[in-house]
Amino acid sequence: MTTLITPTPISGFPEHLPEIRMIEQKLLDTIRRNYELAWFASIETPAVERTEVLTSKWADDKEIYSVWRLLEEDESIEDKLALHFDLTVPMARYVAQKYNDLTFPFRRYAIQKVWRGERAQGWRYKEFYQADIDIIGDETLPISADVEILTTINNVLADLDVGKYTIHINNRKIIVGFVESLWVDKSLVWDVIRIIDKMPKIGELEVRKSLSKKLELTSEVIDQAIVFCQIAQKGNIAVLKYLDWIDNPEVQYGLIELKKVYEQAISLGMSDDTIMLDPSIARWLGYYTGTIYETFLDGHEWLGSICSGGRYDNLASYFTEKQLPGVGVSIGVSRLLSRLIQIGKYNTNRQTPSEILVTKLQSEYENQYLSILWELRKAGIPSEIYLDGSVKIGKQLGYANKKWIPYSIVAGWNKITKWEVQLKHMYTGEKEQVSIVDITNRVKELLTQSIK
Amino acid sequence: MTTLITPTPISGFPEHLPEIRMIEQKLLDTIRRNYELAWFASIETPAVERTEVLTSKWADDKEIYSVWRLLEEDESIEDKLALHFDLTVPMARYVAQKYNDLTFPFRRYAIQKVWRGERAQGWRYKEFYQADIDIIGDETLPISADVEILTTINNVLADLDVGKYTIHINNRKIIVGFVESLWVDKSLVWDVIRIIDKMPKIGELEVRKSLSKKLELTSEVIDQAIVFCQIAQKGNIAVLKYLDWIDNPEVQYGLIELKKVYEQAISLGMSDDTIMLDPSIARWLGYYTGTIYETFLDGHEWLGSICSGGRYDNLASYFTEKQLPGVGVSIGVSRLLSRLIQIGKYNTNRQTPSEILVTKLQSEYENQYLSILWELRKAGIPSEIYLDGSVKIGKQLGYANKKWIPYSIVAGWNKITKWEVQLKHMYTGEKEQVSIVDITNRVKELLTQSIK
Repeated sequence: MTTLITPTPISGFPEHLPEIRMIEQKLLDTIRRNYELAWFASIETPAVERTEVLTSKWADDKEIYSVWRLLEEDESIEDKLALHFDLTVPMARYVAQKYNDLTFPFRRYAIQKVWRGERAQGWRYKEFYQADIDIIGDETLPISADVEILTTINNVLADLDVGKYTIHINNRKIIVGFVESLWVDKSLVWDVIRIIDKMPKIGELEVRKSLSKKLELTSEVIDQAIVFCQIAQKGNIAVLKYLDWIDNPEVQYGLIELKKVYEQAISLGMSDDTIMLDPSIARWLGYYTGTIYETFLDGHEWLGSICSGGRYDNLASYFTEKQLPGVGVSIGVSRLLSRLIQIGKYNTNRQTPSEILVTKLQSEYENQYLSILWELRKAGIPSEIYLDGSVKIGKQLGYANKKWIPYSIVAGWNKITKWEVQLKHMYTGEKEQVSIVDITNRVKELLTQSIK
Repeated sequence: MTTLITPTPISGFPEHLPEIRMIEQKLLDTIRRNYELAWFASIETPAVERTEVLTSKWADDKEIYSVWRLLEEDESIEDKLALHFDLTVPMARYVAQKYNDLTFPFRRYAIQKVWRGERAQGWRYKEFYQADIDIIGDETLPISADVEILTTINNVLADLDVGKYTIHINNRKIIVGFVESLWVDKSLVWDVIRIIDKMPKIGELEVRKSLSKKLELTSEVIDQAIVFCQIAQKGNIAVLKYLDWIDNPEVQYGLIELKKVYEQAISLGMSDDTIMLDPSIARWLGYYTGTIYETFLDGHEWLGSICSGGRYDNLASYFTEKQLPGVGVSIGVSRLLSRLIQIGKYNTNRQTPSEILVTKLQSEYENQYLSILWELRKAGIPSEIYLDGSVKIGKQLGYANKKWIPYSIVAGWNKITKWEVQLKHMYTGEKEQVSIVDITNRVKELLTQSIK
């Protein structure tokens, strides 16, 4: 006797039923389609990297999963492997390693799982999908790359039909230059930014308190900081005018870039009300140097940014002496998935991609049933046949109902001999008689209608 | 100064350039499309399982990769995780665990990476893609499930355009029953099968030698075994007739199943010459009990079977007391990929999915160029714009050539003012003038033609 192993879920490693997995696939497919439409080629790096590649300054080493052979004894430390915790470090390593084989600017997308050994809670998983795009230049990269990133994520979000969303855009030079222009002590610049950045979470009063108590800024300076934080609410034109008045070369340089991103995005069909020029967003990752993106679903800002990124001067500096500037964003697919399910946009009952079930009413017609199935599949219609012909027709149709298959075909002697079948609409109970030669066309017609 | 980490490849973990990755994606997409067409729903299990789930009798423990947190100190042995080495064990665990939420027969496909810490050589990788389909019944599963598996992999292979292939089919009961009918000692049955199964590799003479020297069978019995091994060469009808004459109940029971699989496959549109009924194939995995599949590319049999599987009575017996019979196959995607590249069916130069490059001839028309780009993308045509408008037009077109983008658009003052552009066929050098309003239609037309 073997002892049974009772399988239990592993916390933080989500695993879906087919009905949810289908929605996840829809999401991943939409992202990929839009990434490819905007000319990003796919790369896929192994799940593992050498540990030394991952334990750089960006990583929280506690979150890294180490990998080695269960029974290995003589493995040397140099061969230690670890699971990647994001797709950015592997991309930097890839670009440095394959520099001579790539065409620059190099544009890649990657949709892969990543692993982080952090405490799982809410939408924080230990295994989750990231969907990244980046454009990497060789020495230089024009600002129009930043526009491409913006319009591509806009296309993804519009296509996903997740409701209204806003992409906040800033330029790191603007927030740094602004704080410097306040004449605060140089050593305090990042402390001020850290506090300003919290405004949406902690509110104006707390920001005022922190700036005056912790950093001892004057109330005049604090007033200026508050205006700066709130200017985004007045609209994009107001922001551009306001920034124009700040007498600081870094702000002005950032503004030129921000303006170009904004104007070209509009030329590329983006609607003004999905963009929010927002001088106060900072993003903490040390490597951003220019454009910064954060994306919020309107009314669901509490979810955090579902798609963030920015411009960096030199990402691959750990792996090569070449100067490789880039710009990119990452979509948090797991968060988006939970959002899509929560807003009830999708049918979470459907367990299969199949559109139609061919039933077996009388076993002597099995070959006819198979031929119908074959015709449907040849026409590209996902379709299945009930396997066990000895089962009563009611139970066969019950199977279609349980899996939410929208149509079924029932045909016995009196139909088959007239070259006809009964086509049943499973959601409404409606029935129609269809000639055998017309089945595929009729089903295609119905499917086209239901997509609309 | 940070020290540079020189990135080096990790042996056995393949990583492709974009041009090869595009072919891999094409392969994975074709497999998925056909899996879904035949009604298989996707599931995806985490990369890791509890180690105890994986170290069952099917695994070679030496090949298992263990996973834990780099800096973890207090992790108990119960929480140990390991990377899955196939998709079958995770599926068995999944089905047992989610039994109450699934509809049976449960049909799933899974296309995921798996990890095996074996010595990498030739097409044996440590990380590779598997693409599996299985149908799992609750207590019983009709033989028509075996037909569905067969026709689905046939559709995949036909669609991949890999050249001619042959799917060898047997039933485990036939080979076991046949050897028993030879009146060899019961304890030798599996030794005989082991030798017979090697026939394609070692040839008739070696098989004869082994059977007589190692197992001391009579020459009469050996003659029968050789006929049995070679009957498949005489065609499917000959095989069926031959088997009909073997007086053994297990052979006869296996034959009924084999016949049904064969006949229904023909009804489902399969061509007779892609099927080889082959009584001598055994497959070694202990759990097969009925139908067995192996697939070879004609003229490339040395590659080994690129798609194998079979019927098993009870796969989830480690995880549940429920009887869950199933049938399934697995496609070795890495082997197939190497094959596709080797036969030169695909262009391995193309580095991007984009079909057209919009160049920037004169920077004052940047907004017009962006509008053209926007129209192309709205029409669903993967397209890109050259980022840096200060670069000479020759270099811009060189970029399109290097990435094998098939078309480009060039338009300066004399064109734009006439609402025209020049459409360049990059592969042939041909040029045509197209009105701005007609661009998307013309490009679509050209792309449709080139697909044919």
